Amino acid sequence: MDYHIIRCARAILHVTDLEASRKFYVDALGFIETEADENHIYLRGLEEHTHHSLVLKKAEKPAVEALGYKVSSNKDLETLSHMFEDKGYPTKWLEKGEQHAVGRALRVQDNSGLPLEFFAEMEPVERLLQRYDLYQGSRMQRIDHFNCGVPDVEAAYAFYQEHLGFACSEYTDTPEGNIWAAWLHRKQNVHDVAFMNGLGPRLHHIGFWLPDQLSLIHTCDVLASMGYGESLERGPGRHGLSNAFFLYLRDPDGHRIELYSGDYLTSDPDFKPIRWDINDPMRQTFWGHEAPDSWFNEASSVLDVFTGEEVKQKPGKLKQHKPTFVI
Amino acid sequence: MDYHIIRCARAILHVTDLEASRKFYVDALGFIETEADENHIYLRGLEEHTHHSLVLKKAEKPAVEALGYKVSSNKDLETLSHMFEDKGYPTKWLEKGEQHAVGRALRVQDNSGLPLEFFAEMEPVERLLQRYDLYQGSRMQRIDHFNCGVPDVEAAYAFYQEHLGFACSEYTDTPEGNIWAAWLHRKQNVHDVAFMNGLGPRLHHIGFWLPDQLSLIHTCDVLASMGYGESLERGPGRHGLSNAFFLYLRDPDGHRIELYSGDYLTSDPDFKPIRWDINDPMRQTFWGHEAPDSWFNEASSVLDVFTGEEVKQKPGKLKQHKPTFVI
Amino acid sequence: MDYHIIRCARAILHVTDLEASRKFYVDALGFIETEADENHIYLRGLEEHTHHSLVLKKAEKPAVEALGYKVSSNKDLETLSHMFEDKGYPTKWLEKGEQHAVGRALRVQDNSGLPLEFFAEMEPVERLLQRYDLYQGSRMQRIDHFNCGVPDVEAAYAFYQEHLGFACSEYTDTPEGNIWAAWLHRKQNVHDVAFMNGLGPRLHHIGFWLPDQLSLIHTCDVLASMGYGESLERGPGRHGLSNAFFLYLRDPDGHRIELYSGDYLTSDPDFKPIRWDINDPMRQTFWGHEAPDSWFNEASSVLDVFTGEEVKQKPGKLKQHKPTFVI
Amino acid sequence: MDYHIIRCARAILHVTDLEASRKFYVDALGFIETEADENHIYLRGLEEHTHHSLVLKKAEKPAVEALGYKVSSNKDLETLSHMFEDKGYPTKWLEKGEQHAVGRALRVQDNSGLPLEFFAEMEPVERLLQRYDLYQGSRMQRIDHFNCGVPDVEAAYAFYQEHLGFACSEYTDTPEGNIWAAWLHRKQNVHDVAFMNGLGPRLHHIGFWLPDQLSLIHTCDVLASMGYGESLERGPGRHGLSNAFFLYLRDPDGHRIELYSGDYLTSDPDFKPIRWDINDPMRQTFWGHEAPDSWFNEASSVLDVFTGEEVKQKPGKLKQHKPTFVI
Repeated sequence: MDYHIIRCARAILHVTDLEASRKFYVDALGFIETEADENHIYLRGLEEHTHHSLVLKKAEKPAVEALGYKVSSNKDLETLSHMFEDKGYPTKWLEKGEQHAVGRALRVQDNSGLPLEFFAEMEPVERLLQRYDLYQGSRMQRIDHFNCGVPDVEAAYAFYQEHLGFACSEYTDTPEGNIWAAWLHRKQNVHDVAFMNGLGPRLHHIGFWLPDQLSLIHTCDVLASMGYGESLERGPGRHGLSNAFFLYLRDPDGHRIELYSGDYLTSDPDFKPIRWDINDPMRQTFWGHEAPDSWFNEASSVLDVFTGEEVKQKPGKLKQHKPTFVI
Repeated sequence: MDYHIIRCARAILHVTDLEASRKFYVDALGFIETEADENHIYLRGLEEHTHHSLVLKKAEKPAVEALGYKVSSNKDLETLSHMFEDKGYPTKWLEKGEQHAVGRALRVQDNSGLPLEFFAEMEPVERLLQRYDLYQGSRMQRIDHFNCGVPDVEAAYAFYQEHLGFACSEYTDTPEGNIWAAWLHRKQNVHDVAFMNGLGPRLHHIGFWLPDQLSLIHTCDVLASMGYGESLERGPGRHGLSNAFFLYLRDPDGHRIELYSGDYLTSDPDFKPIRWDINDPMRQTFWGHEAPDSWFNEASSVLDVFTGEEVKQKPGKLKQHKPTFVI
Repeated sequence: MDYHIIRCARAILHVTDLEASRKFYVDALGFIETEADENHIYLRGLEEHTHHSLVLKKAEKPAVEALGYKVSSNKDLETLSHMFEDKGYPTKWLEKGEQHAVGRALRVQDNSGLPLEFFAEMEPVERLLQRYDLYQGSRMQRIDHFNCGVPDVEAAYAFYQEHLGFACSEYTDTPEGNIWAAWLHRKQNVHDVAFMNGLGPRLHHIGFWLPDQLSLIHTCDVLASMGYGESLERGPGRHGLSNAFFLYLRDPDGHRIELYSGDYLTSDPDFKPIRWDINDPMRQTFWGHEAPDSWFNEASSVLDVFTGEEVKQKPGKLKQHKPTFVI
Repeated sequence: MDYHIIRCARAILHVTDLEASRKFYVDALGFIETEADENHIYLRGLEEHTHHSLVLKKAEKPAVEALGYKVSSNKDLETLSHMFEDKGYPTKWLEKGEQHAVGRALRVQDNSGLPLEFFAEMEPVERLLQRYDLYQGSRMQRIDHFNCGVPDVEAAYAFYQEHLGFACSEYTDTPEGNIWAAWLHRKQNVHDVAFMNGLGPRLHHIGFWLPDQLSLIHTCDVLASMGYGESLERGPGRHGLSNAFFLYLRDPDGHRIELYSGDYLTSDPDFKPIRWDINDPMRQTFWGHEAPDSWFNEASSVLDVFTGEEVKQKPGKLKQHKPTFVI
């Protein structure tokens, strides 16, 4: 492979009310607002040394415009575009200057229909990791991963592994031996992206890394005291899969955010992916707690890279096995 | 009042399998086993300087034999017994030596039918607060409170306030102005005992104090890894009422244990009890999470001080207002 | 005793620059500023339901004007004043209205020369314990204790125990059997006041309660990032004596503040005071770390209740035993 | 570069008393003892999926036998050996079976004289990350880094960067523009190895990763309660450099162990190494605390790969600039 994807790097979300979003993301969750204009808010975590990892873009309807990955160099963008084109995936270039604070970018709809973006350059900014006087709310640290619902997990898994160089850390298996869900990484923790069988393509959630478990608990307290009790969808709890401490939130437009802390190092090429049985009650929540229905059923629509229209969704290929622990 | 109740001090629980109980309380929750014989296990927390705060007694059926309060002196026991007798409550004395490690004790069924015990003396033991090498599991610290379901909360409240010297820190009100539940204390935190409207007399749970929030989270992890996932009934979460961080467990006999940390100082006589509306979703869990049905419906039977038989239970006087947030 | 002291309740500190103090106490430590005027800032912790626990008063020189204790009722003030006067201590009354937000107050210089104040009433304010959205910096919770250097610890101890009703939780002994230092309480934790042998009367520090250990660590990070590195005098660490997690700070005028979390319940009248040998290296810092010289040598001057002049200081009666672990 | 070093992977320490070491590493620090024989103890952290990351080997004198790095494959060992040999470094092979639980290994003395070992294979074992019932003491997680004193940091830096593929995350500069110390990584956090100017080659410490800050604080408490107060050499504190929370311990033979938690992701090739001025008081301890003399002066001797004799040490090339903040 003559290109090198570094990590999941930014998401572009369409939101309907920038002020409502700012209150949620900045005041409550503690994101740093790097910059904003009439139609955008650019957010980053305290650890991030580049301009943003989340773009909120004013729009009529909530949706996901792009899931962005950082690559090693602009040259990698070229070789990556050839790979996609060779396989029949049309690509789209956004030249440097077309998007604020980002270099040249390649966009493409992947084999599940997810709107991907690749870029090598983003404007550097001051890293605020040691500006503890600016820590507030959740003490948001950095973007960690995307989790997507797709109709055919095995196809998505194969494409990312064979053509994009992702490795699998953990996966969920059905009794029939099908992969129900897979956690894939480029950077050295559990995932940059996960795929779950289900109606898709949809973005189930964006995961952000927090420094410790108490930051997640404090997030619950802060959100509740600000009147956001209903945004607390699931958790806090411990994932069996990934071992991370988690909390799922819904933003004012219904986009799902996971606060995530404390998985593990996945540097070793001989680390054998961990298999979980879909019926293991400790898989999702190690403590055995069930997730609410909304967590299974609701997710964000994604947009077509070329038309800007919502991508049509198809049901998951595998049928559901057990209501309470499925996905 | 010429007697002085210090605090809730010990509970005597009937359990059906001492080995199963030991594994749960000692190995998982980190209680210190002060002593045991064929029919009893005596447990204490790391902070406790007296012999035990929990007695597990082998029996045919799970039940609560006594809820024990420490008083200032043996003389207080006399004056307390006069008060009860004057009001028509028969009392029972257990002389020093009749119960292991405890001085003279007064037992009486209170106006809700709960089996109370009062004593001034308990054998001192080494306090292990600074034996951090012995900390394990939940890092159990000390007994904190009893929570009881009773048919008439206002009557219980009145008796404890007027005749036993308890102060109210917080309470739950119905739209009709009835007290649905009340948190009453002698020591200077939120409660030594709470009463909730419902089928009773029953012991809903015994609360134990933990040093911090992470000890509760670690308890979930430890219990899950030992196969006790189903013991995790509710939480971890933040109580609106009391502001404590909580976790509810069910022991192998179904007795409910609350791990509890971080309420507040209630030293001031001019502190006005905090009123909660029964329909406030933040009252029970500040984050808005619902409690499971079992938490509302199940509780431990209590025994008659004189006959040792189960005390007959009556339904709560107030009718239930809202299914999900009631009690 | 026909008066009832509740707890240590407020301190009045003279400071030379209100703006500098505000930045330190409000911005960095997270105190709530209840109110301020040209010459005063009134501060409280998140848990406190009364107007303030710390008054910063603009003055030419840093000093301690009063150490305030809350009593049960205004009637207690009368009986307390009689006790002092009977023993030859002149008293001074500040009528309601003379001090902002405080009721009638009794001031008196105690037998060590410390300027005490007693009052029963303070204006109630909203308790912000569950306004987690307002938590910042240290997440300051409530006042906990005063620690004072006095020339004769045994005399101070005797007076507070016999005439003011304090109980001893822990104390430090010399090889000769003299009490070097004593921790005395009215409320049910380790202390409301401690006395240490040394040049006095002086206020060594005011202790404030924080909710957990991580709040102390975050305080270090916040202070360092604001340029207050030199304010971090000692800690964080674990006290052997009291078992609390601690951090000592110096405010912009050199007044010493202790952040303190996690001691234990002292409700029981039969709890035997814990004796520490002055030469035990784990007494001060359980981990064996030494305190810096400044911690031993520097403290705040106190003012005469009647003249407002600095009270003359005398050296400690006991001679120092070992340089590194003394006091 | 046609070889790929994955990460720092194990150290072999010579110790004089295996029982004393076991008590310290297993009972106090919570390492998992995978296996032991008369002359070795093999230890791993809770997260580790391979046989061990620390070998304690019984010997007459404390010393460091090898600093081991994991590479991608056995083929990498060949290409790596050619590189070393081409540059005039003699190499030594230990065939599979010669060392317990490890595959074929290449040993070589690097340009500073440090005894390196490279291997691709280690026997897999059960990962205990989710066996929370086995967590004790420090809750040891995994090996993180080596820190070495060397006479010529710039030479070491250049060799590791140019020939071994390490990237620099942070470094310390002198006013003259010399690199005083450098933090170099292969895996995606701050370092796998650091070099500091000083008498060397010596191993200053091995860093182990803990899951959170409270695990370091609990380590202090546990060590103190076991009588290991003098093992607590420095900390807990926050490093300016790396932003990690740290604690330095000395094992029974004087080897230094760093417990380390919470640095940051270093995945990005365009991340600019962070420069620290040697005279910045926040560099070592962000809070401004000084390190003790022993931390600057004492370190472990390393052995010659071929003779097993102690490697002769030379003083650091750069002269010391400021006593308190140097190194």
